[in-house]
Amino acid sequence: MMSEQESLATDPVPESHPRAKSLRIRNRLIDGFEQGLVATEGLLAHGRGEAFDYILGEETSYSARRAISAAAALIIMARRPVISVNGNVAALCPGHVVKLAGQIGATLEVNLFYASVRRKGAVAAALRENGAEGVLGMDSDDSGVLSGIDSARKVSDKRGILTADVVVVPLEDGDRTAALVKAGKKVITFDLNPLSRTAQTASVTIVDNVMRAISLLTVECRRLQAEDKTVLEGIMSGFDNKENLRESMMQIRNNLERMADA
Amino acid sequence: MMSEQESLATDPVPESHPRAKSLRIRNRLIDGFEQGLVATEGLLAHGRGEAFDYILGEETSYSARRAISAAAALIIMARRPVISVNGNVAALCPGHVVKLAGQIGATLEVNLFYASVRRKGAVAAALRENGAEGVLGMDSDDSGVLSGIDSARKVSDKRGILTADVVVVPLEDGDRTAALVKAGKKVITFDLNPLSRTAQTASVTIVDNVMRAISLLTVECRRLQAEDKTVLEGIMSGFDNKENLRESMMQIRNNLERMADA
Repeated sequence: MMSEQESLATDPVPESHPRAKSLRIRNRLIDGFEQGLVATEGLLAHGRGEAFDYILGEETSYSARRAISAAAALIIMARRPVISVNGNVAALCPGHVVKLAGQIGATLEVNLFYASVRRKGAVAAALRENGAEGVLGMDSDDSGVLSGIDSARKVSDKRGILTADVVVVPLEDGDRTAALVKAGKKVITFDLNPLSRTAQTASVTIVDNVMRAISLLTVECRRLQAEDKTVLEGIMSGFDNKENLRESMMQIRNNLERMADA
Repeated sequence: MMSEQESLATDPVPESHPRAKSLRIRNRLIDGFEQGLVATEGLLAHGRGEAFDYILGEETSYSARRAISAAAALIIMARRPVISVNGNVAALCPGHVVKLAGQIGATLEVNLFYASVRRKGAVAAALRENGAEGVLGMDSDDSGVLSGIDSARKVSDKRGILTADVVVVPLEDGDRTAALVKAGKKVITFDLNPLSRTAQTASVTIVDNVMRAISLLTVECRRLQAEDKTVLEGIMSGFDNKENLRESMMQIRNNLERMADA
Protein backbone atom coordinates (compact mmCIF):
# COMPACT_ATOMS: atom_id res chain seq x y z
CA MET A 1 0.00 0.00 0.00
CA MET A 2 3.00 2.30 0.48
CA SER A 3 4.06 4.28 -2.58
CA GLU A 4 7.51 5.77 -2.91
CA GLN A 5 6.18 9.13 -1.76
CA GLU A 6 4.49 7.60 1.22
CA SER A 7 7.75 6.25 2.55
CA LEU A 8 9.06 9.83 2.65
CA ALA A 9 7.63 10.06 6.14
CA THR A 10 10.60 8.11 7.46
CA ASP A 11 13.29 9.93 5.51
CA PRO A 12 15.88 11.63 7.76
CA VAL A 13 14.59 14.85 9.29
CA PRO A 14 16.99 17.79 8.80
CA GLU A 15 18.54 19.11 12.04
CA SER A 16 17.32 22.63 11.21
CA HIS A 17 13.62 21.71 11.09
CA PRO A 18 11.79 23.56 13.88
CA ARG A 19 9.95 20.38 14.87
CA ALA A 20 12.86 18.00 14.17
CA LYS A 21 12.67 16.18 17.54
CA SER A 22 8.96 15.55 17.32
CA LEU A 23 9.25 14.40 13.69
CA ARG A 24 12.12 12.03 14.51
CA ILE A 25 10.08 10.46 17.29
CA ARG A 26 7.13 10.16 14.89
CA ASN A 27 9.35 8.43 12.34
CA ARG A 28 10.48 5.88 14.94
CA LEU A 29 6.85 5.07 15.55
CA ILE A 30 6.01 4.78 11.84
CA ASP A 31 9.05 2.50 11.40
CA GLY A 32 7.72 0.44 14.32
CA PHE A 33 4.34 0.26 12.63
CA GLU A 34 5.90 -0.99 9.41
CA GLN A 35 7.88 -3.58 11.40
CA GLY A 36 4.70 -4.90 13.04
CA LEU A 37 5.46 -3.60 16.54
CA VAL A 38 2.84 -0.84 16.61
CA ALA A 39 -0.91 -1.33 16.15
CA THR A 40 -2.99 1.00 13.95
CA GLU A 41 -4.57 2.39 17.11
CA GLY A 42 -1.06 3.04 18.42
CA LEU A 43 -0.51 5.58 15.62
CA LEU A 44 -3.67 7.46 16.61
CA ALA A 45 -2.67 7.35 20.27
CA HIS A 46 0.73 8.79 19.37
CA GLY A 47 -0.97 11.61 17.46
CA ARG A 48 -2.98 12.47 20.58
CA GLY A 49 0.26 12.45 22.56
CA GLU A 50 1.91 14.79 20.04
CA ALA A 51 -0.90 17.31 20.47
CA PHE A 52 -0.64 17.25 24.26
CA ASP A 53 3.15 17.47 24.13
CA TYR A 54 2.81 20.51 21.86
CA ILE A 55 0.59 22.38 24.29
CA LEU A 56 2.83 21.28 27.18
CA GLY A 57 5.66 23.13 25.42
CA GLU A 58 7.56 19.93 24.53
CA GLU A 59 9.77 20.06 27.59
CA THR A 60 9.98 18.30 30.95
CA SER A 61 8.14 20.48 33.45
CA TYR A 62 8.92 21.03 37.09
CA SER A 63 5.88 18.94 38.04
CA ALA A 64 7.05 16.12 35.75
CA ARG A 65 10.45 16.20 37.50
CA ARG A 66 8.72 15.92 40.85
CA ALA A 67 6.70 12.92 39.59
CA ILE A 68 9.92 11.35 38.30
CA SER A 69 11.47 11.66 41.80
CA ALA A 70 8.39 10.12 43.42
CA ALA A 71 8.38 7.32 40.84
CA ALA A 72 12.06 6.62 41.47
CA ALA A 73 11.51 6.46 45.25
CA LEU A 74 8.54 4.11 44.79
CA ILE A 75 10.44 1.81 42.43
CA ILE A 76 13.49 1.60 44.70
CA MET A 77 11.32 0.67 47.68
CA ALA A 78 9.43 -1.97 45.65
CA ARG A 79 9.92 -5.65 46.39
CA ARG A 80 8.83 -6.83 42.94
CA PRO A 81 8.86 -4.04 40.35
CA VAL A 82 7.67 -4.88 36.84
CA ILE A 83 7.81 -2.76 33.68
CA SER A 84 4.95 -3.47 31.29
CA VAL A 85 5.92 -2.92 27.63
CA ASN A 86 3.54 -2.34 24.72
CA GLY A 87 4.09 -1.80 20.99
CA ASN A 88 4.56 1.97 21.10
CA VAL A 89 7.07 1.75 23.94
CA ALA A 90 9.00 -1.01 22.12
CA ALA A 91 9.09 1.14 18.97
CA LEU A 92 10.04 4.39 20.71
CA CYS A 93 12.52 3.51 23.42
CA PRO A 94 13.37 -0.21 23.77
CA GLY A 95 16.95 0.54 24.85
CA HIS A 96 15.89 2.96 27.56
CA VAL A 97 13.34 0.51 28.95
CA VAL A 98 15.95 -2.26 29.18
CA LYS A 99 18.38 0.17 30.83
CA LEU A 100 15.78 1.23 33.42
CA ALA A 101 14.94 -2.42 34.18
CA GLY A 102 18.65 -3.17 34.64
CA GLN A 103 19.17 -0.18 36.93
CA ILE A 104 16.37 -1.13 39.31
CA GLY A 105 16.32 -4.92 38.94
CA ALA A 106 12.83 -4.90 37.44
CA THR A 107 11.18 -7.60 35.38
CA LEU A 108 10.09 -6.76 31.80
CA GLU A 109 6.68 -8.04 30.69
CA VAL A 110 5.06 -7.68 27.27
CA ASN A 111 1.41 -6.64 27.53
CA LEU A 112 -0.58 -5.51 24.50
CA PHE A 113 -4.06 -4.08 24.06
CA TYR A 114 -4.28 -5.36 20.47
CA ALA A 115 -2.50 -8.63 21.15
CA SER A 116 -1.37 -11.18 18.59
CA VAL A 117 1.34 -13.82 18.84
CA ARG A 118 3.23 -12.07 16.07
CA ARG A 119 3.14 -8.63 17.64
CA LYS A 120 4.07 -10.02 21.07
CA GLY A 121 7.05 -11.76 19.46
CA ALA A 122 8.13 -8.55 17.73
CA VAL A 123 7.98 -6.58 21.00
CA ALA A 124 9.97 -9.25 22.90
CA ALA A 125 12.52 -9.35 20.06
CA ALA A 126 12.95 -5.56 20.18
CA LEU A 127 13.67 -5.80 23.92
CA ARG A 128 16.11 -8.70 23.50
CA GLU A 129 17.95 -6.88 20.69
CA ASN A 130 18.48 -4.11 23.21
CA GLY A 131 19.97 -6.43 25.80
CA ALA A 132 16.96 -7.75 27.75
CA GLU A 133 17.54 -11.23 29.11
CA GLY A 134 14.24 -12.54 30.46
CA VAL A 135 11.04 -11.18 28.95
CA LEU A 136 7.76 -12.28 30.56
CA GLY A 137 4.25 -12.30 29.13
CA MET A 138 5.11 -14.75 26.35
CA ASP A 139 4.47 -18.18 27.88
CA SER A 140 0.83 -19.15 28.38
CA ASP A 141 1.74 -21.75 31.07
CA ASP A 142 2.45 -18.89 33.45
CA SER A 143 -0.49 -16.75 32.41
CA GLY A 144 -3.21 -15.63 34.74
CA VAL A 145 -5.97 -13.07 34.53
CA LEU A 146 -6.09 -9.62 36.08
CA SER A 147 -9.73 -9.09 36.94
CA GLY A 148 -11.69 -6.00 35.95
CA ILE A 149 -10.67 -5.65 32.30
CA ASP A 150 -12.23 -7.00 29.11
CA SER A 151 -9.40 -6.54 26.62
CA ALA A 152 -6.52 -8.89 25.90
CA ARG A 153 -4.52 -6.85 28.40
CA LYS A 154 -6.06 -8.83 31.26
CA VAL A 155 -3.77 -11.79 30.47
CA SER A 156 -0.71 -11.32 32.66
CA ASP A 157 2.21 -13.32 33.93
CA LYS A 158 2.06 -14.94 37.40
CA ARG A 159 5.81 -14.36 37.79
CA GLY A 160 5.43 -10.75 36.67
CA ILE A 161 2.54 -8.31 36.78
CA LEU A 162 0.19 -10.56 38.77
CA THR A 163 2.61 -10.77 41.70
CA ALA A 164 4.23 -7.35 41.36
CA ASP A 165 3.83 -4.65 44.00
CA VAL A 166 4.86 -1.78 41.71
CA VAL A 167 4.06 -1.76 37.99
CA VAL A 168 5.46 0.79 35.53
CA VAL A 169 3.00 1.17 32.66
CA PRO A 170 4.17 3.72 30.10
CA LEU A 171 1.40 4.77 27.66
CA GLU A 172 -1.41 2.85 29.30
CA ASP A 173 -5.21 2.66 28.96
CA GLY A 174 -7.52 3.67 31.78
CA ASP A 175 -9.23 0.31 32.31
CA ARG A 176 -5.98 -1.50 32.96
CA THR A 177 -4.60 1.19 35.23
CA ALA A 178 -7.79 1.02 37.31
CA ALA A 179 -7.63 -2.80 37.44
CA LEU A 180 -3.98 -2.74 38.57
CA VAL A 181 -4.71 -0.19 41.30
CA LYS A 182 -7.77 -2.20 42.39
CA ALA A 183 -5.53 -5.28 42.66
CA GLY A 184 -3.51 -3.39 45.29
CA LYS A 185 -0.55 -2.47 43.13
CA LYS A 186 1.18 0.89 42.95
CA VAL A 187 1.11 2.09 39.36
CA ILE A 188 3.56 4.49 37.71
CA THR A 189 2.59 5.81 34.31
CA PHE A 190 3.83 8.19 31.62
CA ASP A 191 0.89 10.05 30.10
CA LEU A 192 0.91 13.36 28.23
CA ASN A 193 -2.78 13.98 28.92
CA PRO A 194 -3.11 15.00 32.58
CA LEU A 195 -6.90 14.61 32.30
CA SER A 196 -6.90 11.00 31.06
CA ARG A 197 -8.35 8.28 33.24
CA THR A 198 -4.90 6.63 33.35
CA ALA A 199 -3.29 9.86 34.55
CA GLN A 200 -6.00 10.40 37.15
CA THR A 201 -6.00 6.78 38.41
CA ALA A 202 -2.28 5.98 38.65
CA SER A 203 -0.28 6.31 41.89
CA VAL A 204 2.38 8.43 40.18
CA THR A 205 1.74 10.05 36.80
CA ILE A 206 4.67 11.47 34.85
CA VAL A 207 3.08 14.00 32.47
CA ASP A 208 5.88 14.01 29.94
CA ASN A 209 6.97 12.48 26.66
CA VAL A 210 8.26 8.98 27.51
CA MET A 211 11.25 9.61 25.21
CA ARG A 212 12.38 12.51 27.38
CA ALA A 213 11.31 11.17 30.76
CA ILE A 214 12.42 7.55 30.81
CA SER A 215 16.15 8.29 30.85
CA LEU A 216 15.56 10.98 33.49
CA LEU A 217 13.82 8.31 35.57
CA THR A 218 16.79 5.95 35.21
CA VAL A 219 19.19 8.69 36.29
CA GLU A 220 16.94 9.61 39.25
CA CYS A 221 16.77 5.94 40.32
CA ARG A 222 20.56 5.77 40.28
CA ARG A 223 20.80 8.94 42.36
CA LEU A 224 18.20 7.85 44.92
CA GLN A 225 19.60 4.32 45.24
CA ALA A 226 22.43 5.96 47.22
CA GLU A 227 19.95 7.46 49.71
CA ASP A 228 18.53 5.75 52.79
CA LYS A 229 14.92 4.74 53.35
CA THR A 230 14.00 7.89 55.32
CA VAL A 231 14.86 10.09 52.34
CA LEU A 232 12.80 7.92 49.97
CA GLU A 233 9.83 7.91 52.35
CA GLY A 234 10.10 11.67 52.68
CA ILE A 235 9.90 12.08 48.89
CA MET A 236 6.87 9.80 48.74
CA SER A 237 4.98 11.42 51.58
CA GLY A 238 5.58 14.89 50.11
CA PHE A 239 4.07 13.85 46.78
CA ASP A 240 0.38 14.30 45.91
CA ASN A 241 -0.42 12.95 42.42
CA LYS A 242 -3.73 14.80 42.06
CA GLU A 243 -2.15 18.10 43.04
CA ASN A 244 0.77 17.46 40.69
CA LEU A 245 -1.65 16.76 37.81
CA ARG A 246 -3.45 19.99 38.56
CA GLU A 247 -0.15 21.79 38.16
CA SER A 248 0.37 20.21 34.74
CA MET A 249 -3.08 21.44 33.73
CA MET A 250 -2.24 24.94 34.89
CA GLN A 251 0.97 24.80 32.90
CA ILE A 252 -0.92 23.91 29.73
CA ARG A 253 -3.36 26.71 30.42
CA ASN A 254 -0.52 29.20 30.84
CA ASN A 255 1.24 27.93 27.70
CA LEU A 256 -1.93 28.42 25.66
CA GLU A 257 -2.33 31.92 26.98
CA ARG A 258 1.27 32.72 26.08
CA MET A 259 0.89 31.14 22.61
CA ALA A 260 -2.34 33.07 21.96
CA ASP A 261 -0.60 36.33 22.85
CA ALA A 262 2.42 35.60 20.65
CA MET B 1 -0.44 -7.87 9.99
CA MET B 2 -3.90 -7.55 11.56
CA SER B 3 -4.86 -10.24 14.04
CA GLU B 4 -8.45 -10.94 14.95
CA GLN B 5 -8.12 -8.82 18.07
CA GLU B 6 -6.61 -5.95 16.15
CA SER B 7 -9.69 -5.68 13.96
CA LEU B 8 -11.72 -5.05 17.13
CA ALA B 9 -10.98 -1.36 16.65
CA THR B 10 -13.60 -1.18 13.93
CA ASP B 11 -16.28 -3.23 15.70
CA PRO B 12 -19.51 -1.29 16.31
CA VAL B 13 -19.22 1.14 19.22
CA PRO B 14 -22.09 0.77 21.73
CA GLU B 15 -24.42 3.79 21.88
CA SER B 16 -23.88 4.01 25.65
CA HIS B 17 -20.10 4.49 25.43
CA PRO B 18 -19.19 7.92 26.82
CA ARG B 19 -16.91 8.58 23.86
CA ALA B 20 -19.08 6.80 21.27
CA LYS B 21 -19.08 9.64 18.71
CA SER B 22 -15.33 10.12 18.80
CA LEU B 23 -14.77 6.34 18.55
CA ARG B 24 -17.16 6.02 15.60
CA ILE B 25 -15.32 8.77 13.77
CA ARG B 26 -12.03 7.04 14.58
CA ASN B 27 -13.36 3.77 13.19
CA ARG B 28 -14.34 5.46 9.91
CA LEU B 29 -10.76 6.65 9.62
CA ILE B 30 -9.28 3.23 10.40
CA ASP B 31 -11.63 1.67 7.82
CA GLY B 32 -10.42 4.31 5.35
CA PHE B 33 -6.83 3.39 6.17
CA GLU B 34 -7.53 -0.28 5.53
CA GLN B 35 -9.20 0.65 2.22
CA GLY B 36 -6.13 2.60 1.09
CA LEU B 37 -7.71 6.07 1.34
CA VAL B 38 -5.81 7.26 4.40
CA ALA B 39 -2.01 7.51 4.68
CA THR B 40 -0.14 6.35 7.80
CA GLU B 41 0.55 10.00 8.60
CA GLY B 42 -3.20 10.64 8.31
CA LEU B 43 -3.79 8.38 11.33
CA LEU B 44 -1.32 10.40 13.41
CA ALA B 45 -2.88 13.67 12.23
CA HIS B 46 -6.30 12.39 13.24
CA GLY B 47 -4.97 11.51 16.68
CA ARG B 48 -3.73 15.08 17.08
CA GLY B 49 -7.18 16.30 16.03
CA GLU B 50 -8.84 14.03 18.61
CA ALA B 51 -6.75 15.58 21.37
CA PHE B 52 -7.62 19.12 20.33
CA ASP B 53 -11.30 18.24 19.93
CA TYR B 54 -11.23 16.80 23.44
CA ILE B 55 -9.92 19.98 25.00
CA LEU B 56 -12.31 22.03 22.85
CA GLY B 57 -15.13 20.15 24.59
CA GLU B 58 -16.14 18.22 21.42
CA GLU B 59 -18.79 20.72 20.40
CA THR B 60 -19.17 23.49 17.87
CA SER B 61 -18.30 26.71 19.65
CA TYR B 62 -19.76 30.15 19.12
CA SER B 63 -16.54 31.27 17.42
CA ALA B 64 -16.68 28.23 15.09
CA ARG B 65 -20.26 29.19 14.14
CA ARG B 66 -19.09 32.70 13.35
CA ALA B 67 -16.29 31.29 11.14
CA ILE B 68 -18.85 29.05 9.40
CA SER B 69 -20.96 32.12 8.56
CA ALA B 70 -17.96 34.01 7.23
CA ALA B 71 -16.90 30.95 5.19
CA ALA B 72 -20.40 30.62 3.73
CA ALA B 73 -20.46 34.32 2.75
CA LEU B 74 -17.01 33.99 1.13
CA ILE B 75 -17.96 30.87 -0.82
CA ILE B 76 -21.21 32.33 -2.11
CA MET B 77 -19.42 35.44 -3.36
CA ALA B 78 -16.70 33.32 -5.04
CA ARG B 79 -16.48 33.15 -8.82
CA ARG B 80 -14.63 29.84 -8.92
CA PRO B 81 -14.81 27.97 -5.59
CA VAL B 82 -12.91 24.68 -5.33
CA ILE B 83 -12.99 22.09 -2.53
CA SER B 84 -9.68 20.26 -2.12
CA VAL B 85 -10.14 16.70 -0.87
CA ASN B 86 -7.50 14.54 0.83
CA GLY B 87 -7.54 10.98 2.17
CA ASN B 88 -8.80 11.79 5.66
CA VAL B 89 -11.66 13.92 4.31
CA ALA B 90 -12.61 11.19 1.82
CA ALA B 91 -12.64 8.61 4.64
CA LEU B 92 -14.53 10.75 7.13
CA CYS B 93 -17.20 12.64 5.18
CA PRO B 94 -17.26 12.01 1.40
CA GLY B 95 -21.05 12.43 1.25
CA HIS B 96 -20.98 15.75 3.07
CA VAL B 97 -18.23 17.10 0.83
CA VAL B 98 -20.17 16.19 -2.32
CA LYS B 99 -23.32 17.76 -0.84
CA LEU B 100 -21.48 21.00 -0.02
CA ALA B 101 -20.01 21.14 -3.54
CA GLY B 102 -23.49 20.64 -5.03
CA GLN B 103 -25.01 23.33 -2.83
CA ILE B 104 -22.50 26.00 -3.87
CA GLY B 105 -21.58 24.83 -7.38
CA ALA B 106 -17.98 24.16 -6.36
CA THR B 107 -15.46 21.97 -8.15
CA LEU B 108 -14.00 18.97 -6.28
CA GLU B 109 -10.27 18.36 -6.63
CA VAL B 110 -8.22 15.53 -5.15
CA ASN B 111 -4.98 16.77 -3.61
CA LEU B 112 -2.81 14.53 -1.44
CA PHE B 113 0.30 15.15 0.65
CA TYR B 114 1.38 11.51 0.37
CA ALA B 115 0.28 11.07 -3.23
CA SER B 116 0.16 7.86 -5.22
CA VAL B 117 -1.92 6.98 -8.28
CA ARG B 118 -3.66 4.32 -6.25
CA ARG B 119 -4.59 6.55 -3.33
CA LYS B 120 -5.73 9.34 -5.68
CA GLY B 121 -7.95 6.81 -7.44
CA ALA B 122 -9.40 5.60 -4.13
CA VAL B 123 -10.21 9.18 -3.05
CA ALA B 124 -11.87 10.00 -6.39
CA ALA B 125 -13.84 6.72 -6.24
CA ALA B 126 -15.09 7.53 -2.73
CA LEU B 127 -16.35 10.91 -4.01
CA ARG B 128 -18.01 9.37 -7.09
CA GLU B 129 -19.72 6.70 -4.96
CA ASN B 130 -21.23 9.57 -3.03
CA GLY B 131 -22.59 11.23 -6.15
CA ALA B 132 -19.74 13.46 -7.37
CA GLU B 133 -19.75 13.86 -11.15
CA GLY B 134 -16.51 15.57 -12.15
CA VAL B 135 -13.49 15.11 -9.92
CA LEU B 136 -10.36 17.09 -10.82
CA GLY B 137 -6.74 16.48 -9.87
CA MET B 138 -6.58 13.13 -11.69
CA ASP B 139 -5.48 14.02 -15.21
CA SER B 140 -1.85 15.05 -15.66
CA ASP B 141 -2.58 16.88 -18.98
CA ASP B 142 -4.29 19.59 -16.97
CA SER B 143 -1.76 19.67 -14.15
CA GLY B 144 0.21 22.70 -13.20
CA VAL B 145 2.35 23.63 -10.25
CA LEU B 146 1.45 25.85 -7.32
CA SER B 147 4.72 27.57 -6.42
CA GLY B 148 6.06 27.71 -2.88
CA ILE B 149 5.64 24.07 -1.80
CA ASP B 150 7.96 21.11 -2.02
CA SER B 151 5.56 18.20 -1.43
CA ALA B 152 3.41 16.42 -4.01
CA ARG B 153 0.63 18.82 -3.02
CA LYS B 154 2.08 21.45 -5.37
CA VAL B 155 0.64 19.56 -8.38
CA SER B 156 -2.77 21.11 -8.98
CA ASP B 157 -5.37 21.29 -11.73
CA LYS B 158 -5.44 24.28 -14.10
CA ARG B 159 -9.24 23.98 -14.31
CA GLY B 160 -9.47 23.77 -10.50
CA ILE B 161 -7.23 24.99 -7.70
CA LEU B 162 -4.81 26.90 -9.96
CA THR B 163 -7.57 29.16 -11.31
CA ALA B 164 -9.82 29.20 -8.21
CA ASP B 165 -10.45 32.38 -6.24
CA VAL B 166 -11.69 30.59 -3.10
CA VAL B 167 -10.30 27.20 -2.01
CA VAL B 168 -11.80 25.10 0.79
CA VAL B 169 -9.03 22.97 2.29
CA PRO B 170 -10.30 20.82 5.15
CA LEU B 171 -7.46 19.30 7.24
CA GLU B 172 -4.60 21.06 5.49
CA ASP B 173 -0.86 21.52 6.03
CA GLY B 174 0.68 24.90 6.69
CA ASP B 175 2.97 25.05 3.65
CA ARG B 176 0.13 24.60 1.19
CA THR B 177 -2.16 27.03 2.96
CA ALA B 178 0.60 29.66 2.84
CA ALA B 179 1.24 28.95 -0.87
CA LEU B 180 -2.46 29.26 -1.72
CA VAL B 181 -2.75 32.56 0.16
CA LYS B 182 0.43 33.82 -1.51
CA ALA B 183 -1.09 32.96 -4.90
CA GLY B 184 -3.87 35.45 -4.07
CA LYS B 185 -6.58 32.94 -3.18
CA LYS B 186 -8.93 33.13 -0.23
CA VAL B 187 -8.53 29.96 1.84
CA ILE B 188 -11.14 28.37 4.10
CA THR B 189 -9.92 25.61 6.38
CA PHE B 190 -11.20 23.28 9.09
CA ASP B 191 -8.52 22.84 11.75
CA LEU B 192 -8.94 21.76 15.36
CA ASN B 193 -5.65 23.33 16.41
CA PRO B 194 -6.15 27.11 16.53
CA LEU B 195 -2.37 27.55 16.87
CA SER B 196 -1.39 25.63 13.74
CA ARG B 197 0.23 27.43 10.84
CA THR B 198 -2.74 26.46 8.66
CA ALA B 199 -5.18 27.95 11.18
CA GLN B 200 -3.13 31.12 11.51
CA THR B 201 -2.54 31.55 7.75
CA ALA B 202 -6.00 30.83 6.29
CA SER B 203 -8.53 33.56 5.46
CA VAL B 204 -11.28 31.81 7.45
CA THR B 205 -10.44 29.06 9.95
CA ILE B 206 -13.25 26.88 11.28
CA VAL B 207 -11.87 25.48 14.56
CA ASP B 208 -14.16 22.48 14.73
CA ASN B 209 -14.34 18.80 13.89
CA VAL B 210 -14.93 18.60 10.12
CA MET B 211 -17.57 15.89 10.78
CA ARG B 212 -19.65 18.34 12.82
CA ALA B 213 -18.89 21.51 10.89
CA ILE B 214 -19.18 20.55 7.24
CA SER B 215 -22.93 19.97 7.30
CA LEU B 216 -23.39 23.18 9.28
CA LEU B 217 -21.47 24.98 6.52
CA THR B 218 -23.77 23.49 3.86
CA VAL B 219 -26.85 24.60 5.79
CA GLU B 220 -25.38 28.08 6.30
CA CYS B 221 -24.59 28.38 2.58
CA ARG B 222 -28.20 27.48 1.76
CA ARG B 223 -29.45 30.10 4.24
CA LEU B 224 -27.15 32.86 3.00
CA GLN B 225 -27.78 32.14 -0.69
CA ALA B 226 -31.19 33.78 -0.11
CA GLU B 227 -29.54 36.99 1.13
CA ASP B 228 -28.31 39.84 -1.03
CA LYS B 229 -24.70 40.93 -1.52
CA THR B 230 -24.81 43.67 1.14
CA VAL B 231 -25.62 41.14 3.85
CA LEU B 232 -22.79 38.84 2.71
CA GLU B 233 -20.31 41.72 2.63
CA GLY B 234 -21.46 42.79 6.08
CA ILE B 235 -20.73 39.31 7.46
CA MET B 236 -17.28 39.30 5.85
CA SER B 237 -16.30 42.77 7.00
CA GLY B 238 -17.36 41.98 10.57
CA PHE B 239 -15.14 38.89 10.70
CA ASP B 240 -11.55 38.93 11.98
CA ASN B 241 -9.91 35.50 11.67
CA LYS B 242 -7.05 36.23 14.11
CA GLU B 243 -9.45 37.52 16.74
CA ASN B 244 -11.73 34.54 16.21
CA LEU B 245 -8.78 32.15 16.68
CA ARG B 246 -7.86 33.94 19.88
CA GLU B 247 -11.36 33.25 21.14
CA SER B 248 -10.95 29.53 20.39
CA MET B 249 -7.73 29.56 22.40
CA MET B 250 -9.45 31.22 25.31
CA GLN B 251 -12.21 28.63 25.12
CA ILE B 252 -9.66 25.81 25.35
CA ARG B 253 -8.01 27.58 28.27
CA ASN B 254 -11.35 27.90 30.07
CA ASN B 255 -12.27 24.28 29.34
CA LEU B 256 -8.98 23.09 30.83
CA GLU B 257 -9.53 25.19 33.92
CA ARG B 258 -13.04 23.74 34.32
CA MET B 259 -11.77 20.18 33.73
CA ALA B 260 -8.95 20.66 36.25
CA ASP B 261 -11.45 21.82 38.85
CA ALA B 262 -13.85 18.93 38.23
